[in-house]
Parts: sequence; structure tokens; C-alpha cells
Amino acid sequence: MPGNSFGNLFRVTTFGESHGPAVGVIIDGVPAGLPLTTDDIKFELSFRRPGRSLVSGRREKDEPEILSGVFEGKTTGSPIAVVVRNSDVISSLYEEIKYKPRPGHADLPFIMRFGYENWDYRGGGRSSARETVGRVAAAAIAKKLLMISDTLVGGHLIALGPIKLEEKVDFNSILCSKYSLVRASTPNLEEKFKELIKQATIEGDSYGGIAEVVVNNPPIGIGEPVFDKIKADLAKAILSIPAVVGFEYGLGFKAAEMKGSETNDEIVNKEGRLGWKENKSGGILGGITNGEPIVFRCAFKPTSSIRKLQKTVDLRTGEETTISVIGRHDPAVAIRGVSVAEAMAALVLVDHSMRSGIIPLVKLSREQATGIQERWERYVKVCGHTAESR
Amino acid sequence: MPGNSFGNLFRVTTFGESHGPAVGVIIDGVPAGLPLTTDDIKFELSFRRPGRSLVSGRREKDEPEILSGVFEGKTTGSPIAVVVRNSDVISSLYEEIKYKPRPGHADLPFIMRFGYENWDYRGGGRSSARETVGRVAAAAIAKKLLMISDTLVGGHLIALGPIKLEEKVDFNSILCSKYSLVRASTPNLEEKFKELIKQATIEGDSYGGIAEVVVNNPPIGIGEPVFDKIKADLAKAILSIPAVVGFEYGLGFKAAEMKGSETNDEIVNKEGRLGWKENKSGGILGGITNGEPIVFRCAFKPTSSIRKLQKTVDLRTGEETTISVIGRHDPAVAIRGVSVAEAMAALVLVDHSMRSGIIPLVKLSREQATGIQERWERYVKVCGHTAESR
Amino acid sequence: MPGNSFGNLFRVTTFGESHGPAVGVIIDGVPAGLPLTTDDIKFELSFRRPGRSLVSGRREKDEPEILSGVFEGKTTGSPIAVVVRNSDVISSLYEEIKYKPRPGHADLPFIMRFGYENWDYRGGGRSSARETVGRVAAAAIAKKLLMISDTLVGGHLIALGPIKLEEKVDFNSILCSKYSLVRASTPNLEEKFKELIKQATIEGDSYGGIAEVVVNNPPIGIGEPVFDKIKADLAKAILSIPAVVGFEYGLGFKAAEMKGSETNDEIVNKEGRLGWKENKSGGILGGITNGEPIVFRCAFKPTSSIRKLQKTVDLRTGEETTISVIGRHDPAVAIRGVSVAEAMAALVLVDHSMRSGIIPLVKLSREQATGIQERWERYVKVCGHTAESR
Amino acid sequence: MPGNSFGNLFRVTTFGESHGPAVGVIIDGVPAGLPLTTDDIKFELSFRRPGRSLVSGRREKDEPEILSGVFEGKTTGSPIAVVVRNSDVISSLYEEIKYKPRPGHADLPFIMRFGYENWDYRGGGRSSARETVGRVAAAAIAKKLLMISDTLVGGHLIALGPIKLEEKVDFNSILCSKYSLVRASTPNLEEKFKELIKQATIEGDSYGGIAEVVVNNPPIGIGEPVFDKIKADLAKAILSIPAVVGFEYGLGFKAAEMKGSETNDEIVNKEGRLGWKENKSGGILGGITNGEPIVFRCAFKPTSSIRKLQKTVDLRTGEETTISVIGRHDPAVAIRGVSVAEAMAALVLVDHSMRSGIIPLVKLSREQATGIQERWERYVKVCGHTAESR
Repeated sequence: MPGNSFGNLFRVTTFGESHGPAVGVIIDGVPAGLPLTTDDIKFELSFRRPGRSLVSGRREKDEPEILSGVFEGKTTGSPIAVVVRNSDVISSLYEEIKYKPRPGHADLPFIMRFGYENWDYRGGGRSSARETVGRVAAAAIAKKLLMISDTLVGGHLIALGPIKLEEKVDFNSILCSKYSLVRASTPNLEEKFKELIKQATIEGDSYGGIAEVVVNNPPIGIGEPVFDKIKADLAKAILSIPAVVGFEYGLGFKAAEMKGSETNDEIVNKEGRLGWKENKSGGILGGITNGEPIVFRCAFKPTSSIRKLQKTVDLRTGEETTISVIGRHDPAVAIRGVSVAEAMAALVLVDHSMRSGIIPLVKLSREQATGIQERWERYVKVCGHTAESR
Repeated sequence: MPGNSFGNLFRVTTFGESHGPAVGVIIDGVPAGLPLTTDDIKFELSFRRPGRSLVSGRREKDEPEILSGVFEGKTTGSPIAVVVRNSDVISSLYEEIKYKPRPGHADLPFIMRFGYENWDYRGGGRSSARETVGRVAAAAIAKKLLMISDTLVGGHLIALGPIKLEEKVDFNSILCSKYSLVRASTPNLEEKFKELIKQATIEGDSYGGIAEVVVNNPPIGIGEPVFDKIKADLAKAILSIPAVVGFEYGLGFKAAEMKGSETNDEIVNKEGRLGWKENKSGGILGGITNGEPIVFRCAFKPTSSIRKLQKTVDLRTGEETTISVIGRHDPAVAIRGVSVAEAMAALVLVDHSMRSGIIPLVKLSREQATGIQERWERYVKVCGHTAESR
Repeated sequence: MPGNSFGNLFRVTTFGESHGPAVGVIIDGVPAGLPLTTDDIKFELSFRRPGRSLVSGRREKDEPEILSGVFEGKTTGSPIAVVVRNSDVISSLYEEIKYKPRPGHADLPFIMRFGYENWDYRGGGRSSARETVGRVAAAAIAKKLLMISDTLVGGHLIALGPIKLEEKVDFNSILCSKYSLVRASTPNLEEKFKELIKQATIEGDSYGGIAEVVVNNPPIGIGEPVFDKIKADLAKAILSIPAVVGFEYGLGFKAAEMKGSETNDEIVNKEGRLGWKENKSGGILGGITNGEPIVFRCAFKPTSSIRKLQKTVDLRTGEETTISVIGRHDPAVAIRGVSVAEAMAALVLVDHSMRSGIIPLVKLSREQATGIQERWERYVKVCGHTAESR
Repeated sequence: MPGNSFGNLFRVTTFGESHGPAVGVIIDGVPAGLPLTTDDIKFELSFRRPGRSLVSGRREKDEPEILSGVFEGKTTGSPIAVVVRNSDVISSLYEEIKYKPRPGHADLPFIMRFGYENWDYRGGGRSSARETVGRVAAAAIAKKLLMISDTLVGGHLIALGPIKLEEKVDFNSILCSKYSLVRASTPNLEEKFKELIKQATIEGDSYGGIAEVVVNNPPIGIGEPVFDKIKADLAKAILSIPAVVGFEYGLGFKAAEMKGSETNDEIVNKEGRLGWKENKSGGILGGITNGEPIVFRCAFKPTSSIRKLQKTVDLRTGEETTISVIGRHDPAVAIRGVSVAEAMAALVLVDHSMRSGIIPLVKLSREQATGIQERWERYVKVCGHTAESR
């Protein structure tokens, strides 16, 4: 309950600070019999990695080590601890912020909460985006487990600052945005995004963006009707990501401007099963998945760390001063944020699949394990030859 | 964990269906020594009540009975059970939907999840908005407890269909939107909202809307840094409300279009305490409250129950058919939704205040209890002479 | 988390005080499709009921009302609220204890915890054994669900004060101790127990006792290996019962005096399955059920309320005084405690069965429901003609 | 919820197998500002360590590494991950048990639960007592935090096989049983215990034992009245320890043979506070601490691993066979079990102290931190010169 765990039956607990010895995660509740290697985890981590692309500075190698819960290539039903050592850590860059809380950052709120004398000011400490390494590592397992129902989670960036995706794209293009260093699902968009990022880098500024996540072939009928609705748990999961400031699913905020006769979706017969004509509700009705693809979007604010001079207060004197946040920062956290949003969606879906008995709670049968592994390998092939080649 | 409870230290569990004998709630974790009467609960329920206004049909008397946890006018530290009997229930209206799942409703997802033969089809059963009676009842206690830090939760409707609040309003106007049957915070807006509702009623249609909730004088430094961020728990709380399809705080989705130099807020010296110049982040940074007012918005889709003919499928034959949802329904759930959004915000804030030790976990001192009661009475006076007079 | 809920996937939350309007329980997590009536609940309550037998005074009618979660005789998957109104409540009997905390009771600890001014002194308030009504009501549902694996929970009293069951009894005799007003599993023991109780009543004193619970045909392989071992969750469940002061399973405390070569149980081939020769470990190894019957015992202290004069302190003066606790009290809570111990065991087993996927989390198939109902009716027939005839 | 976490506000999650790369723990919920070093953890681990004494074989160095949550010698409020690498691991010793489940061990139940093909058979895997390293490491922090109320947890072995402590010993003797390699609190007992162990080693057999834990100066008024009674949570904590088969507090099972007039404890005036004359209820009434020392006992069964030949079944053939469990094993797990029982008691008490607001949930004041550190150093001095000297 103290806030570093997520999920009920599939439960992850992350730990670690930006400039401490390591970050990591314990994943508890993984059924026995799932094939698992560090490569699976590295694959997912590769898309979250800064240093991977033009949009980042810090070069993290992100070598995960599995400390428990896996024996002879398969999960045993015991908790899986994954540790990623921090390297490439230059704490000296952070001496200045010890006295100058950065606008847009959690520096001052951390001080307000935990006390100045207990504050790990190095690189944001616990509030650093580095914490999300544990989430993405855990999501590798979650995504594998979702293969049991042939469920795929895909994400892409549909807006970066003023630039927006205008056309409709299919699920495959979304999935293959992993090829794009800026998580664009069309070549046209990719070019525009890159241009904007270059410009931001030159200006020493940053941009916000909107990620969209689509879950194809979701398990049907998962979600608890009242507080633990799928939409509620997704909202929590997504808003728990640093820099996310908004969440909507289906028609989202647009629905607020519309009439019921416009937003209600016709129920129709779809090749033997009942379905909804236009999926206006983004795959969720009454908080329960209805078999249509889950579609949600989330807004990321611009990276708070910018080179441009900003006003703040010197904590030693209480007087106003300025700060230019140097160091290596993404000009748009939304890009890497796509991976984290996907990860959180996967965690929610696996947890609810288990709460609905769709993923076994204790162990997979051999057939299930084999099917999962085959689909996983196909997914890896589709999304990127290997993580390393990027 | 099965989904009908919310909160960690201040924990509510609701029960009841639209057309069963009763709805209600158990509130567990209330410290001993809080003055509490059924009138306190009735006061908050009065703003949620349909039948209260032009926007509703069903006339619920909503007489809460406290079954436990209160002795001689004060809480004892034991769980408080509140039951509200269902009256004015005409199940026969719902015979048709037994075979014709309503578009936009949870009918079909419930069937998908729990099985057709176990489905309580009367009035939405458990997915009815009637369930929120228990939440609002619990929130009366939560709002009282928040008086310990002089914290007030106010909500208003800032958009209804195409009509939007254009000007800035102060907190008092927001609080006093309780006077307005359509939760408008300005007379001008009230008139426009009423006009739109009349029109929708005539058309047999409905409208969506956007509620804004502002928390004045929030406890500082509450919120857990990682998964249980205030923003995350608010998002979950709000998205757990029926018909809510989006959540944002601070600049929200607008931030996605902006630059970091625009969205970062200057840290300034505010009469002896450090603060933020424009409260661009809606009172929350790093998931922690920073002392500025908390500001969030949520989008409600239009009421799904509309008189206009809609297409659906007859479950007996599998063939397409139409339905006109008669019965007494709000043409805009967003109006009553304001009360529920306030309620959920209060639940989150009390829970986190307790997790941060700001509200005592076991018992209030007499001084605390007295201060709370005084502020509560002032609040009741400000927000409405009495619940009954409405 | 505030302490009035039990279980993870099958979660009960009780409320109510001895002399308040009602006691009750919400049971959340019951899968849809279980046949359920108030008679099922009354049946189990009948064995807990004081007034049923020579061993009690208070005459509670214990008429449960189901407020939610059941529709047309079957559970719907929604939370089930059960309320039992308190009748036969004479609070005036308790005026004296307002100033004289009773030895052996929770009076003074409650005052220490919640404050004297917030203390509901009437009949023990929340610490009254009356709270267990909710547990036993919930256990009726739990016991029905356990029928899915043909699992039966039986309890009997194996010791009362100095009198002990000496011979071995079979499971059927244990189950049929429900016929006995003193929960004896042999006629000989019943007579001795009754004699002792008469004597205690005359003396104005009370006796402790030991209950044994046996779970026949338990689900195999349930229990989490580390903290949530079956033995650990049973121990918590049982020690949460008022007056229980000890728990042991299998050989229990006797094992502490023995050698490994004596306590280890041979693994043998039992008609096609592997089993243990003598069930020395009471059906649990490594915290996991191993297929042998679960056997545990718990010690109840004597009823704290006795007529005999006892020393205490007058809270008004701080001076020593005496009290004779009049009112209608069992001279041996252990007798009714058998029912509560059974109930708590059933709650634990259902919860863990669900955590292991043995009981479906969302809905029962019709076949499962039918099989459960048939076994339940057989059980009711075996254990007592009808609850009312007693 | 999947079973590898313990506690609510002070929450530990352990991971690791006997023969995997490491064991460890995440401790979440530690308030900021607590002075903490790896030496604090090593100190507590030193008493759990096998290889420390005559009673063990495996030589674990148990070098804990803190990976997070501590900055400049103080906790930051973030989760603390502690990892202890496994060394001295000879898996080959365990090849035989791959086919021959050991009597008294969790081998066969693990296979029943997780599937034979997923079973980590090396040294008991997750069910190995090695898992308790994480618990004891976490308890170092818990014990430090309890210093805030000057609360000390002491344990000793009061029975080993047929040998029993006969006299009363004071708390200091109990605390100083840490000096004794067999956790005896008197020199006389120590000698007898050692003699018995020698004999068991010669015979290739093992003995059970009883540990008693006393908590001096416990926080008053902690414990939730219904399910989360202190006695219930202690029982769960203690029964979650491998090899524990029974728990009792206060008079325990003896109370079952007694009369109420004998077991009720007089309430008396004790130098200005109300107290209980003889502490017959072991410091707990109504599930709440009453200010008297907490006293409980637990029974450990004999070590299951014995050299003596035992019967089992060959999993390859299904035929009966025999096994002699070689390897380095304690002839009495109860001895090291004392440390683990202490640890679990400390975890429960800290958690409940936080649930009662006695230990701050977010941060310690400097004064609190200083007081804690002083008392801790005194405790270390009393209990053992240094961990290393042993």
C-alpha cells in the first residue's frame, strides 16, 4: 500500500533512483511455466531506452539481470526480481538543483513531503523517469502472458506539439511505429516530428505530445463493474506515468460536446458474435471490455528540463533566481512515453485477465506456454528484427 | 479486491442494485470522534438526487439510515454502514431491455461477463448510476474530515454539449453552483444550460458535458511518488464514475500542444511560502500536492438512455431491431455527475491525507472535532440553506 | 485495510455493534450463478445462535435480509449485503460497565485506543461476539462454493475445561456434532460437557475449551508458498475470533517435543495418487494443501463475563472496586466458537481456492451450480433436519 | 496479493530461491529520515545465519547490499531494496531429490501446485528457509523504527525436544539469549540444549522446539478490533515461518483448561496508569495491545532434513523407495527460528504502529531520528559486541 506497487493478482513493485546503484522490479503473481529470458525483457526495454535515438542524451545500457523466479528458462511461480544497474551516471550535473528547484519538476514537492534533509536531489531521485525501467521490464512478461488470448498492445505518437496525425492508420502501422525513432506510424508524420524535435533542441525547449494505445483482440468481459472498471484502472495506470496530464478513451472529451444519438453505438451482429458498429466507446462499456479493440489516448506535457532560462527560488536565501537545466534530456518525453503507456496498459490487462480467470493464476499448461512463445516470437519479428539492431 | 471497494485507509465498499431492496455503503477507517448525523449525509445526497431538478425523472427520497459506527452523535472508529432503501421502483419498465440490450449501456457487457442467466436487467442493475448513492454518502464523511485542514471541494459544470463557460470564476462561485439546478457557476451559463436541456428533452436526446472540480486549500505534500500519485488516484476515482470518458488536470490536453517554456510554472515566493506563479499544473507536481488549488476536469458522455429510436439486436433471435428507451432519465448525466466527481475527489483526498498522517488514523481530538464541526456548518450554510429546501 | 475486511478474492466486510440497530456483512467476490436464499444463511446462523441451547441467554432471532447481489434466487456477481437487525437488546444492563471496565474484556483497550468519550460501552460494542454473525452468514456462501470440489468443513469441541475427547472420531461424527447443543461428537462427551456447564452456571463461572476443525476432501495444491501459506491464513482467521488464544495444526505443539524421524510422514502411493501415510502435518506442507484432510485446533479462553465478583478500577475515581457481570452469557464461548471457527476456515479455503483458480472468479457454469446445490442439500440433511427445529 | 508481500503500511516483499543468484527484499513504506546502514542489517542477519554456530552447516556470508531508498546514510521515503547474493551453493547435492520428494518437505506440494516441469528442486527452491533472509533484513529496519516508542523485541528458545526452560527469566536475559548460539536464556539451559543437539547430530535426527517472543514496552492501543487484531496478525506472521506448527499468546492453550475466574486478570492502578495485575493475556485484549508486555510462543517442528533413512516414492516409477537427506542442515531449525519469529513480530508491530499513527508514515523528525539511533546503538551493544565477532 505504500505506493510502489501496482496490480492485484499480477503485482509489480518497482524500486530505485536515477543515480542510485540500480533500478528494478519484483513481479509477483506470474504463473509457472512461462518461457522467459533476459532477452525478452531487453527487447521491450530497447524501445524505452533513451540513447536509442535522436531524442535522448543519457546512454543507458539497461542490462537486466533476473535474480529469481526463473529456472531452466521457465517461470516457476515464484516472484521474479529484475535488476538493472545504473551506469553512465554523472551526479555532479545535479549540484545546482540542490538549491534551485526546477520548474515543472517534482523537486519542491518532494522536499515538501519528505523533508529537505532527506531529499535525494540527484537527477530527480525516485521521481526520475528512470523508475519506469522496472515497469517496462515487467510489461515484457505481461505482454507475453497476453499472447494467451492473442492480445497485442500497440502504441504510437499521434501528436507532438502542434503537429498531429490526420489520417486513420491500421493496427499494424501502430505496432510498427516501434521501428520509428519518434514512434510515428506514418513516414510523413515521422519526418515532421523529427523536424520539430530538431528545432526544439536548437531552441533549448521541449514539446508535449499525445500517445494513443490500441489493444487488438482484447479479452472479452474483463473489468469489474464498479470501482475497478477497466477504464478506471487504465486511467490510474496511465496517470501514474511521469508527465502524463490527461487520459481519454473512445470518443473521449469530444463526446462531451455531442448528443446521445451521436455517441451511442449501434449493436450489430458481427459474424456470429454481437458487436458494436463503430467502436465509439473504445472497446469498453460499463467499465467492461466488449470485444472491440481498446483505444485510449494520453497527453504528455513537454519535458520539464529545458535549457532555456527559467525563474525559480534559491532555497538557501529564499530569493528569486534563474536556472538553465543542462544535462541530456529528451526534448519530448512523449516519445519514450509511448513505451511506458503500452507497458502500463499491458499490466492492467494482465491483472484483469487474471481477475477474470482468463490467464491461469498458478500455472500454464504446456500447450498454453507453447502458443504464447510462438506468438511472442512472431511479435518480436514484426516489431523489430532485434532490439540490438536499433 | 473484487472491485466494489475504494480507498486504502479510508475505505468505502458499496453495494446494491437499481431495483433491489436497497443501495448502501460501508465506510471503514473513519477515526473516532467525528460528529456525524444522517442530516450530514442527506445534505450531500440532496445534490446528487435526481428528482431534485428539471433534469431528472425518478423521484428518490434517499433517506439514509446509519446502521453502525456512530454512538451518541459521534463516530466510534468502527465501520459505518449506511443503507438507503430503494423506493419508486417500477421494474416493469425494463421488461423490454431483457431482450434488447441498450446501445451505450452496460447491458451486453454484463451479459458477456456474468452470463445472460445471471443478469439483473432491471434498470441497469449494478451498473446503474444509483450505485453512486453510496459514494456520495461516504463523501459526506470525507468532506467533513477534510475540514481538518480547512480543505473544500467544489465542482461545477463548465460545458454542456456545445455550450461552454467562457469566463474565469472564483472558488466561491464554484462552491455555490450547488444552488443551481444545473450546476452552473454563473447566471448566464445557467440560463443557457437550461435552454439546451429543454431542447434535448423535446428531441428525446441527451448531451454530454464537462465537470471541473477545484479543491481549495488542499493538504500539502500528499500523494505517493510512483503508482499512487494523487493524479493517478484521482484519475481512477473519476473514471470509475459511470459515463466519464476523460480526465485531465492543470493544463491537461492543451499542454500536449505547448512548449516546456510555456507549460513550466515559475516557482515564486508567496508570502512566506514557496509556490507556483500560475498554478499551471493544477496543484499537483510529481504526483504530489504542492499547495496550490487542485484543478481537474472530466468529460461525461451524453446519457445513454434516449427516447430516440436506436438500432440494437434482439437477443432471442439474433436479429436487428430498434429500441426507444423510455423511462425517466436525465438528458445530461453530467449535471448530477458533478456531485459524484466531487465525492470521488473527496474520497481520494481523505485517503491520502490519512496516508500522510494529516488526518489522524484512529481518533480525533476534541479540538479537531470541534473545528471540523464549525467549518462544516459554515459550509452547509454557504452551499444551501438546507438540503430539504431544494 | 482498516481492519473490518477479510479475504482477497472472496472478501467479507462486517459491520455492526452489539446494541446498535443491526449487524451485517458485505460479501464481495462471489461468482455469478450460485443458488442462494436467506434459508441457506439462516441454516448456518442457527448453529452460532445463542438462545439455541442451554449455553446461552440472549435470544437473537437472527433473521438475515439479503439487500443486494441476488436476483431470482441466484447470485449475480455483485456484492451481497446481508443485514441482521438487533432485537432483544437491553442496554440498561450495561450502565455499570460504563465506569467499571470488565476484566478479560476489551473495554479498557477500546478506551485506550479510541478514547473514552467515543466508546460504545453497550454490550462490548464492536468487540462483542455478536460481530461474528456477519462471518457465519458469509460462510454459508463460502461453504456452498466449496461444494464445487466436494469439500466439507466440520468442527467439534474436543475439550471443555478439564474434560477431553479421548477417542478418535470419524469425519461424519464431527459433522454431526451440529446436532449436539454443546458440539460434542460423541454421546459420552456430550453428557460430560453438559454436566460441566451446569456446574459453571451454578458457580457463576465459565470454562475454556478447544475446538477442532477438519476439512474433508480439501482442494489440492492451494496456498501461497511464502506469507500467505494456508496455515498462516488459517491462523490469522482463527486468531481473529474473539476469545481464541492459540492455534495449531497437524501434530501442533506436540511436534516441538519430538524428533524429525517421528514427525516426518512417509510419502506413499495411495490408490493412484501420492499421499502421506498418517497425515501428521494436518493436510498442509510448505503452507500448501497436500490432499490429506486439513486438521487444526484452537484454544478458547473461558467466557470473560462471569457472575463471580472480580476486581477492577472505577474509571471515575481511579480507585479499585469490584464487578459482577450479570446479563445473559454463555459459560463457555468455545461452544458457539466452533461455528465461527468453521466459518473462518471456510472463508480462507474459498479465498485460496479462488486464488488458485479452483473456484471460478466470475461465474459458475450451470453444471457447477447444479452440483453445488445438490451437495448442499445433502449437507443440510446430514447436519440438521432444519435450522428451525432446533 | 500473490503471497510474497507482508504488511500494509510497512510492506515487505521477498524474493529469491535457495540456489538462485540471490535472495532479497523490498521494504516499502519506510518513513524518510531513518539512519540506516548495511551494518544495521548485517547485525540482525548475524543471528539468523547458519554457519554461525554449531547448529548449522551451510556457510552463508550474507552480505547485504542496499540498492535504493537510502541517501547519505538516511532513508528517503522511497522503497529500500536489499539484495544478498547466494554463495556457497552446491546444487549437485540436490539431484537425488529431483525424483525423491523428501518427507516433511514442500517438495511434493510444490509439484502438486506448480507442476513438476516448473519445479525448482534445488535446495527447496522458494520454500527454503533461505527466503527468511529477506524478512530478517527488513526487520532490522522495523526494529529500529520501534525504538521510537522504546519498544524492544526479544526472543529465546524455551524448549528443545524434551528439554524445557523451567524458571522465569527477565527480559534482559531473553534479549541476551542472542549471545547464546542456541538461543538459551540461562547458562544451564544452554548446556542442555547443546548436549541434545550433539546427540541429534550423531543420530542423524533432529528436534522440534518452542520459541517465546516478548515485546517490552509495546505501543499501547494498537491493533484493529476485528480481523486485523494484533493477535491475528502475529499468528499469521508466525505461522508464515517455515516449520512453525503452532502459536499461542498469554496463557495460550492452558487457558482452555481453566475457569474464567482464573484466566481473567484484575485491572489495577499501576503508578498512574491502569494496567493488568499478572498479564495473563500476554499484553493483548480484544486484539488490542494494553500496555503490558506482549508474550507469545510458537512451536517449531523438527528439521525435516534428516540423515536417517526415510520412506518416500520415486517419481519416475511411482514405486516406494528410501532417502537419506544429506547436506548441511540444522538439527533444530527452532534455534535460528527464534530470529525469524522476532523479525516477524517486529514487522507486525511496526505495521500496526503506523496504522495507529504512532510511527510517522512519511518522515521522522530529526529528534525522532536521533532518539532512535541512540537507542539502537545501545541495543546493539547489549545484544552483541559486533555481529562479526560471533
